[in-house]
Amino acid sequence: MVKVWKEKEVSHICSGVIFNYYKKIRTSPDGKKKGAFDVIECYPWVNVFAFNEKNELILVEQYRHGVDSITLEIPGGAVDKGEKSLEAAKRELLEETGYTSSEWVSLGEVQANPAFMTNTCATFLALNCKKTGTQNLDPMEDIEVKLLSLERFEQKIKSKEIAHSLVVSAYALYRLWKD
Amino acid sequence: MVKVWKEKEVSHICSGVIFNYYKKIRTSPDGKKKGAFDVIECYPWVNVFAFNEKNELILVEQYRHGVDSITLEIPGGAVDKGEKSLEAAKRELLEETGYTSSEWVSLGEVQANPAFMTNTCATFLALNCKKTGTQNLDPMEDIEVKLLSLERFEQKIKSKEIAHSLVVSAYALYRLWKD
Repeated sequence: MVKVWKEKEVSHICSGVIFNYYKKIRTSPDGKKKGAFDVIECYPWVNVFAFNEKNELILVEQYRHGVDSITLEIPGGAVDKGEKSLEAAKRELLEETGYTSSEWVSLGEVQANPAFMTNTCATFLALNCKKTGTQNLDPMEDIEVKLLSLERFEQKIKSKEIAHSLVVSAYALYRLWKD
Repeated sequence: MVKVWKEKEVSHICSGVIFNYYKKIRTSPDGKKKGAFDVIECYPWVNVFAFNEKNELILVEQYRHGVDSITLEIPGGAVDKGEKSLEAAKRELLEETGYTSSEWVSLGEVQANPAFMTNTCATFLALNCKKTGTQNLDPMEDIEVKLLSLERFEQKIKSKEIAHSLVVSAYALYRLWKD
């Protein structure tokens, strides 16, 4: 049976804008192996699978610094300290797109990357969204809203134009909810 | 139109076992905004949606240092330098489970996290896998093979027992391939 390792020592190596990086010294359950493991600690994240009243998906096009290129994604972001994940989902949808909804469903949650990251991403479905506001972007954000049918969204996953793992995961959670 | 930002300066902050961490100073296309952005550079990854001859999914149970708990995932790992992603997928499947296949299909590729990570994860489908070898684990790995029907796998995503975003993404790519 696979068992949890024991933590012997934790060193904080450095902090980025969006994470803390730790080195964790851990030993195997039988005490025979000992290693130093990278752990990246981030705030929890949320994202939103949001449809407007015409059943079009509300997407965001933006420049992403990790891949140094423009991506097409669903709205989302980090949960603020003390904020509930549903509140964060509503806030991110409004800030990034100007849309709101009164029909929210929890689709589930994934782990960002359990191998070396601590956090989760909760996904919500927002139905019949209406454009009731305007974008309210962070100073470093530049986002364009795009509307797409579910079929075109699926085609764009196949063609790798939509490729963010958390967006593709959100689509899986939506499919499982819909089945 | 959303445009790519311009890179002004790159500082290598530190390196973990599995990544390099850079701080990138970039300016917006119009030159009006300037910021420092976290970028985590990793090797490309692969994972494998593998079925045995009874059409059961071949899964791996292991302790994961990021979430400090036991997870259930599909086999996968980092692509070695100079290795092709399909070769890496075949190697990881054999090393982690002892299974091999002669029927491989590329299911596509996702970005690990385009916001701050550089790398991709390619997903392969392996059909009619046979247990032709034995596990050959890295010194720090301890993995148990589990077999599950697709239906039970889907239930475990819903119940969050299977939660790795790259595993849930792989399932989405499989569903789109199957449609």
